[in-house]
Amino acid sequence: MSLKILPYAAMPADRVTTSGVSGATIRILIGPNDGAGNFTMRLFELEPGGCTAKHTHPFEHEVFFLEGTGVALDGTIERPIGANVSVFVPPNELHQFRNTGKTVMKFLCLIPNSAQVVPSKLPVGATCPCSG
Amino acid sequence: MSLKILPYAAMPADRVTTSGVSGATIRILIGPNDGAGNFTMRLFELEPGGCTAKHTHPFEHEVFFLEGTGVALDGTIERPIGANVSVFVPPNELHQFRNTGKTVMKFLCLIPNSAQVVPSKLPVGATCPCSG
Repeated sequence: MSLKILPYAAMPADRVTTSGVSGATIRILIGPNDGAGNFTMRLFELEPGGCTAKHTHPFEHEVFFLEGTGVALDGTIERPIGANVSVFVPPNELHQFRNTGKTVMKFLCLIPNSAQVVPSKLPVGATCPCSG
Repeated sequence: MSLKILPYAAMPADRVTTSGVSGATIRILIGPNDGAGNFTMRLFELEPGGCTAKHTHPFEHEVFFLEGTGVALDGTIERPIGANVSVFVPPNELHQFRNTGKTVMKFLCLIPNSAQVVPSKLPVGATCPCSG
């Protein structure tokens, strides 16, 4: 067998402890450890009220929302997001995703391997940084 | 507004007429035309009984199944696939996806931009090439 075929839930979930992130876990579904040479597929789960960091970085995001409802910060405004919505975040654009619903928000977020983002595995300790 | 945020259904669907493909449409959700410099997010829909091509190519696929049930050809065997399953197809590995269910199969399939795959827009004319 040469293909990696797995339900996403079979991959380990790590709590995201990056500054500015609240209520989030990350799973690396496909990445360099599998021999993926160009880009990495990650699945995030955001608890109700949770958010990703309000930040910029020099690489792009390609995102697809699987479940839940929320908003995406796009510069200075917030735009609605939910299941079956794709989001392209160009390099260096300010962005943040917030779960404003009552259920877990799930989304894929893919990045180029050149981004060299490594999720922290330190214990969670911060208060909620999410704001509307 | 700097982020591209769209329900996938808002993007145009093109019938895939590549040899060996049956009952498939493709939508380019995020790609070079959006300024995505590294990889392209595509969404495929496969009708019941439909399939993608049984083929190899020198670039990888990173796939996530959204809806439906079917099988993935992995060399000489077929393995079950369905919603919430991710599949990594390494470069040069023989593969094919078949919809063996009664509903439309939907999946994301991402490729590096270096693949330079351009979907054909020629009229459909082939009989079903899908086989178990």
